[in-house]
Amino acid sequence: MSGNTFGTLFAVTNFGESHGPAIGCVIDGCPPGMPLCEADIQADLDRRRPGTSRHVTQRAEPDAVEILSGVYEGVTTGTPIALLIRNTDQRSKDYGDIAQRFRPGHADYTYWHKYGVRDPRGGGRSSARLTAPTVAAGAVARKWLAAQFGTQVRACMSQLGELEIGFESWDHVAQNPFFAPVADVQRFEDYMDALRKAGDSCGARIRVQATGVPVGWGEPIYDKLDADIAWAMMGLNAVKGVEIGAGFASAAQRGTVHGDSLSPDGFRSNNAGGILGGISSGQDIEAQIAIKPTSSILSPRESIDTAGQSVQVSTRGRHDPCVGIRAAPIAEALLALVLIDHALRHRAQCGDVRQAVAPISAAVR
Amino acid sequence: MSGNTFGTLFAVTNFGESHGPAIGCVIDGCPPGMPLCEADIQADLDRRRPGTSRHVTQRAEPDAVEILSGVYEGVTTGTPIALLIRNTDQRSKDYGDIAQRFRPGHADYTYWHKYGVRDPRGGGRSSARLTAPTVAAGAVARKWLAAQFGTQVRACMSQLGELEIGFESWDHVAQNPFFAPVADVQRFEDYMDALRKAGDSCGARIRVQATGVPVGWGEPIYDKLDADIAWAMMGLNAVKGVEIGAGFASAAQRGTVHGDSLSPDGFRSNNAGGILGGISSGQDIEAQIAIKPTSSILSPRESIDTAGQSVQVSTRGRHDPCVGIRAAPIAEALLALVLIDHALRHRAQCGDVRQAVAPISAAVR
Amino acid sequence: MSGNTFGTLFAVTNFGESHGPAIGCVIDGCPPGMPLCEADIQADLDRRRPGTSRHVTQRAEPDAVEILSGVYEGVTTGTPIALLIRNTDQRSKDYGDIAQRFRPGHADYTYWHKYGVRDPRGGGRSSARLTAPTVAAGAVARKWLAAQFGTQVRACMSQLGELEIGFESWDHVAQNPFFAPVADVQRFEDYMDALRKAGDSCGARIRVQATGVPVGWGEPIYDKLDADIAWAMMGLNAVKGVEIGAGFASAAQRGTVHGDSLSPDGFRSNNAGGILGGISSGQDIEAQIAIKPTSSILSPRESIDTAGQSVQVSTRGRHDPCVGIRAAPIAEALLALVLIDHALRHRAQCGDVRQAVAPISAAVR
Amino acid sequence: MSGNTFGTLFAVTNFGESHGPAIGCVIDGCPPGMPLCEADIQADLDRRRPGTSRHVTQRAEPDAVEILSGVYEGVTTGTPIALLIRNTDQRSKDYGDIAQRFRPGHADYTYWHKYGVRDPRGGGRSSARLTAPTVAAGAVARKWLAAQFGTQVRACMSQLGELEIGFESWDHVAQNPFFAPVADVQRFEDYMDALRKAGDSCGARIRVQATGVPVGWGEPIYDKLDADIAWAMMGLNAVKGVEIGAGFASAAQRGTVHGDSLSPDGFRSNNAGGILGGISSGQDIEAQIAIKPTSSILSPRESIDTAGQSVQVSTRGRHDPCVGIRAAPIAEALLALVLIDHALRHRAQCGDVRQAVAPISAAVR
Repeated sequence: MSGNTFGTLFAVTNFGESHGPAIGCVIDGCPPGMPLCEADIQADLDRRRPGTSRHVTQRAEPDAVEILSGVYEGVTTGTPIALLIRNTDQRSKDYGDIAQRFRPGHADYTYWHKYGVRDPRGGGRSSARLTAPTVAAGAVARKWLAAQFGTQVRACMSQLGELEIGFESWDHVAQNPFFAPVADVQRFEDYMDALRKAGDSCGARIRVQATGVPVGWGEPIYDKLDADIAWAMMGLNAVKGVEIGAGFASAAQRGTVHGDSLSPDGFRSNNAGGILGGISSGQDIEAQIAIKPTSSILSPRESIDTAGQSVQVSTRGRHDPCVGIRAAPIAEALLALVLIDHALRHRAQCGDVRQAVAPISAAVR
Repeated sequence: MSGNTFGTLFAVTNFGESHGPAIGCVIDGCPPGMPLCEADIQADLDRRRPGTSRHVTQRAEPDAVEILSGVYEGVTTGTPIALLIRNTDQRSKDYGDIAQRFRPGHADYTYWHKYGVRDPRGGGRSSARLTAPTVAAGAVARKWLAAQFGTQVRACMSQLGELEIGFESWDHVAQNPFFAPVADVQRFEDYMDALRKAGDSCGARIRVQATGVPVGWGEPIYDKLDADIAWAMMGLNAVKGVEIGAGFASAAQRGTVHGDSLSPDGFRSNNAGGILGGISSGQDIEAQIAIKPTSSILSPRESIDTAGQSVQVSTRGRHDPCVGIRAAPIAEALLALVLIDHALRHRAQCGDVRQAVAPISAAVR
Repeated sequence: MSGNTFGTLFAVTNFGESHGPAIGCVIDGCPPGMPLCEADIQADLDRRRPGTSRHVTQRAEPDAVEILSGVYEGVTTGTPIALLIRNTDQRSKDYGDIAQRFRPGHADYTYWHKYGVRDPRGGGRSSARLTAPTVAAGAVARKWLAAQFGTQVRACMSQLGELEIGFESWDHVAQNPFFAPVADVQRFEDYMDALRKAGDSCGARIRVQATGVPVGWGEPIYDKLDADIAWAMMGLNAVKGVEIGAGFASAAQRGTVHGDSLSPDGFRSNNAGGILGGISSGQDIEAQIAIKPTSSILSPRESIDTAGQSVQVSTRGRHDPCVGIRAAPIAEALLALVLIDHALRHRAQCGDVRQAVAPISAAVR
Repeated sequence: MSGNTFGTLFAVTNFGESHGPAIGCVIDGCPPGMPLCEADIQADLDRRRPGTSRHVTQRAEPDAVEILSGVYEGVTTGTPIALLIRNTDQRSKDYGDIAQRFRPGHADYTYWHKYGVRDPRGGGRSSARLTAPTVAAGAVARKWLAAQFGTQVRACMSQLGELEIGFESWDHVAQNPFFAPVADVQRFEDYMDALRKAGDSCGARIRVQATGVPVGWGEPIYDKLDADIAWAMMGLNAVKGVEIGAGFASAAQRGTVHGDSLSPDGFRSNNAGGILGGISSGQDIEAQIAIKPTSSILSPRESIDTAGQSVQVSTRGRHDPCVGIRAAPIAEALLALVLIDHALRHRAQCGDVRQAVAPISAAVR
């Protein structure tokens, strides 16, 4: 109820502050009997980890995850899986000067008003560092989805600041620090270098996709699959927009164009983004998210302090000049967490999912 | 868990099918002591009601609401408020020919796969008619928010098909059937007439805003205020995209531009859309939603039937050529429902909301 | 969150006041594909109904249930099932004299303090009349449990005031107005007649049992099956105690006596009441509940009014002299509702329930 | 949904196994601004700790708690409070012989059936050791309740095996290892010594009380305060019965006796146990629980193994001969957790609790 739990049947409760002793999460509801070890989780954490290129924060945090419970002899037992990541590279003094002044565009101001007290070190609870437990939980979800249904989630960058990024191939994504689906990323390198030099930051757009999703996941009329994806994505730090399928472009479409025709071999198009009436159609789930520029920048800006007085704010510390760069693995985790929760919800009400899938859905992509 | 409840502390459980005996909802958690009568609710229902202009479905349904419980001598008692709307103008035969064939872009296909059985009359549970109970519950939420905090929610159309709609004044919205914030709507009349003649439908974009929202509402890190708004809006039938504040435009912005500066008199801009770190900032909440074209259209399209055979589908019946037209009052209700829930959640954890608001917030708009 | 919803996956939201327009509930999460009609529900309602013997309240209420949604052509669709019962025999003037004074032992006092306002007619929301929607929802749960697993729930009276009631046979329960499992109930008739003459009321004890419950239902460590049964039963009006299996007697037992031995043919005894570690063991579920005497009695008692002044209270109106008499069908419904919720929760996490049951469980009763 | 979370607004998610790396919990919803340090929690943990007398298990576990998050500079921040207790004295070989055979009366059998896999070391997840995180969370709840309302919770033993324990004074409870409210405990020492010699175990009864509870906590009609207390208590390992106020004795009472009269100075008696209609009345909350004998005993018993074959089971290891002895601090914690959750739920719906309490309630105890 206080907002730190993701999901209902596969429920992930997140805890921690950027510069506290540790961050982590408890997963309640993971099905029993699945092989799981720390390496399964570490792989995804490493993709999100800071310090991996010069375009992201230089905080050197190993983000080593420890499984505290819920796994016995390498197999999940159906009991809560607690995941712990110790914080090791906190430099709290970096943040001392902003404890009493609000960074424009940052959660400083609202946390202070809401709770009357906040941990200002590294953004405390509002830090993007808290996406690490989400990614860790997402790795567990992904493993189960893949094993049960062959479901795969993946994400790539589709826009970096003003630069649109065309789609060449998913194969490129792991080959560059931008998660870009293109072979040549030199212009992104140059763009980011110029940005850092200017003491500024930029936004981004991310595309996220799931393949191998059976027909029938999603709970109308409020907990629709697309509604929960929108909730998950908009809840990611700095996200300001979410689209499913044709998204905002659909406002200008005609019904004769937008509605995806069906044939005995499957759907003819995917304007729907794989979701009809809030329920997965068996097509690929397609979403896009817009990420705002990092609010912690070097350039000085006008603001106020906790006493309401006018001040200048300039953030030193170690920050991502484009938080969108590391967002791809997080978006994947979020989508996986939404999907597993709906898989279990569907199984609860309608019985085993695989039986519910009519033959045609296999061909429908 | 099965997706028909909106909210947690102000929880609205929705029921009904388009052509069943009745639709309605139960509100659990409405604070006691608030004056409430059917007329308070009917006003909002009437704004959403079909048959009010030639540009919306001609189904003539009075949508008269009856309060079944939770109100004694005109005052809420803190017990569940059940709201009932009888269905009166069902013409089920209009839909007989589509019981076994799937309309492209419609929930027919996914409901059938998910549940194995569905009520096909008028779209059954997936009908936009089920937004009426949401609007009714929203009216209760709005009354409480206005009385407690002076919070107001309002929405207008910002795009109709290919036509962008500039903003002139909120005063115009109630003066035309399009909820357009402009004085002259002749081009929308013409556009819609041509569309109907073509047997086609179009999409739309809606802007929704809340004023008078105190600082501090929203529960990080998952149930953020913007995440819940995204969930609510994306859950509305036909919505394919949601933006908060600068939305997708923020992907191309720089940090020096996007971050809203603060002064002792308040914020200097509102790219954030009134939400920072998932918590309201005291500024106006601003959101935009994209609505796809109606999937029930007269023009014949390729599809399949429940046996997987190729068929042509052409929907007669009475349908909105642009479901976005009636979406404004629904979007308002959805925003109000998100806000009241977070108001109560904030009060639970942090005590009385009004005390938590620092003086500056009053000036910050 | 405001306490009017029973269950999570088979969630029943209850609404109404004793003398308002109607009472009812919305069931969200009923599996699709189950035949269901009003008669299925009415049978259980009739067993709970007032006015069926001279030992219960003479309020003559048909309690006719109407299914408003969630059923199409006699089959559940997986969408919410709304059940409506109109109130028809309200005599509100009977209660006019107690609107401002608190009946000892009654919820008048606490509702008034909690909400600041209450519907005093017939006890308003705190009336035992509000168990009717629970019974109606329980009937749906029972039908599904019986069809899926052969699960049966039943209850009988085991104590009436000071009178202990031995167990002869379940067959007698439906043959007398006391739900007593004995052939001769003359002494209960005499006891109740004397009680009414004295203007007094008495307590009771009820035994409730479920057979055919598979091994594996229940969610440790908090939402244990027995914990949820205790919650359900203690939440029934006037209940002051709940026991599972050996109950309070187990405090004086030794481990060598209490622990139910297992053999290849099943358990040797059932001190556990069918639940071990919060999970069903495949044995019969056994519970007992203690019900306090009705607080609305004719005999005058000392109390205070809303101004805090000393007053005498004597309740006329139509009341059950022993609310325990009509409690048996309600206890059955409550147990069924707990069981179906755990059946679905188990299915969500562990897959199809019937596959999870090892062969031995069939023999274990 | 999978049963490991206690509460809604003050939600405690418990994790861990008896012999895994660690146990702990995450508290989501603790109000901000409360001073909190590890010592506040350790005091209650130490009262529950094993190895404190010869009558409890000799496992020597310091149960040292670490606060991982949610507290900054000694004050709660309103963000999740993660509490970690490392397991240090696991002797897993003690349990090796029972991995394949089911202890009568133990959760071994049902966990194995439910999940198909379980951690058998020390009872794994079903161990009473998992009450430690509950106690830790309860300590946080108690501190807040005491600071806000002066609410105090306390528990004592009222029966040890066959021995009834009269009530002399709360002052004695902390002076003996039995939590007995009497000065002379020699007969309990002798009783326990004989029991251990016999290789047997015994049950117990515990009384738990809360003082200083304002009028108005509790959410009818399902989440009643007494229903939630029953849920909490029945969910405690080995509990088989729960009573509120007069409990099972009320079945034999008359209405003229049971109903607690009110006077301008307060209630005349407390058969209700401080709860009317599911809502606190301002009187002391009074509950009793029955605890079954420990199922892990030295005396050999008949059972089966995982292959369904007949075996003898005799448990060595280190076990409490009467789990009831250490139950008092746990029962206190459970009651505190129920109360704080309802305090926050009441505040959400009805506003600040202290304002809601009418003057008379201060005098009513």
